[in-house]
Amino acid sequence: MRHFEDELNELQSRLLEMAGVVESSIHLSLRSLVERSEEDVQQVLRNEDRINQMEIRADEMATRLMALRQPMARDLRFLTAAVKINADLERMGDLAVNIAQRAVSLMRVPEVKPLVDIPRMGMLVEVMVRKSLDAFVNRDGDLARTVLLADDAVDSLKESTYAELIRFMETDSSTITRAVDLMFVAHNLERIADHATNIAEDVLYLAQGIDVRHHSEG
Amino acid sequence: MRHFEDELNELQSRLLEMAGVVESSIHLSLRSLVERSEEDVQQVLRNEDRINQMEIRADEMATRLMALRQPMARDLRFLTAAVKINADLERMGDLAVNIAQRAVSLMRVPEVKPLVDIPRMGMLVEVMVRKSLDAFVNRDGDLARTVLLADDAVDSLKESTYAELIRFMETDSSTITRAVDLMFVAHNLERIADHATNIAEDVLYLAQGIDVRHHSEG
Repeated sequence: MRHFEDELNELQSRLLEMAGVVESSIHLSLRSLVERSEEDVQQVLRNEDRINQMEIRADEMATRLMALRQPMARDLRFLTAAVKINADLERMGDLAVNIAQRAVSLMRVPEVKPLVDIPRMGMLVEVMVRKSLDAFVNRDGDLARTVLLADDAVDSLKESTYAELIRFMETDSSTITRAVDLMFVAHNLERIADHATNIAEDVLYLAQGIDVRHHSEG
Repeated sequence: MRHFEDELNELQSRLLEMAGVVESSIHLSLRSLVERSEEDVQQVLRNEDRINQMEIRADEMATRLMALRQPMARDLRFLTAAVKINADLERMGDLAVNIAQRAVSLMRVPEVKPLVDIPRMGMLVEVMVRKSLDAFVNRDGDLARTVLLADDAVDSLKESTYAELIRFMETDSSTITRAVDLMFVAHNLERIADHATNIAEDVLYLAQGIDVRHHSEG
């Protein structure tokens, strides 16, 4: 039987490999929107199948490790965090698919206006995802905290994107369908940011044993 | 030390108690929209705090049970399902809060038109949630399958709601802000239905050991 520590490391490697595919999906979904690339959409859909398989395998591995050995408190914290991070990554992949689907509708019609805020929001979100995973690998609570702060910036960028799109719709009703698609793109980006925030919260729990969930409610 | 079986039963009871609060939140969020009730909104917000506390406690209990004993395969399947159902319930509570927040904006302005499709969608979703939990309590795979089927009905009702709201926006630009709020209500209902579907999938896994996740993709 392999050393328990090796198996935990392998589980972490699998999550990071999955995260790489998810990050690629997020990036490609935004590029498919900006560059109107059908090929990028196809790649996001291919990635989704791979992510789904990876999620099931990582889940099975985490469950098996919880069952076969009697993990110590620290390892058990890692395993429960791994199960949650796995679910967050899978959902991020789904949200990238949603963005790519909106990109397909938008590809067929003229631009409402040059995209500015959504690519900017996308960049912020990509950085949040990257930092949440770096924080996970290094159990870096300080880095995880920067992810929680960035979430507020994404929310306010989303609000201004909504406000601008509503002005477009009110001024020119021919833009409505397209503006609604863009609102849902912004909404999906915000949800990806929420999942990065979940991962950062899990890292704080791992790094310091503090439960920071529901930190920003009310 | 208490009998392991008793502790598993207590965990299940806690989840069902939490589900009761979540179901009440979903119902009140829809009622706050239809009846323009500020008091219902307040109750949804109070429920959210309670749900968040319940989620943390159920999570701690599941983690402790995984750690302290070496559960058999069947019990471990229950514990991992419990962790997931717990997370799904908490998110449903958040989505009810989102609906209640849209209800607050809509309360201050005249109706776009009498609400028909959204309350109907709400009823379907409430039934899905109830059935997914009944299926969980009774490990009833057949009932869980009816939840998976109902999800398609909710999706198609959502699509027709969107189409109707877009027609309103195109015809009368003064309805745009309100129609967007209603679209997000429909979107949140669809997401609640997705979480009920997740629970039903976990029940199928519990009842039959079949992994039906990603059943409807592609």
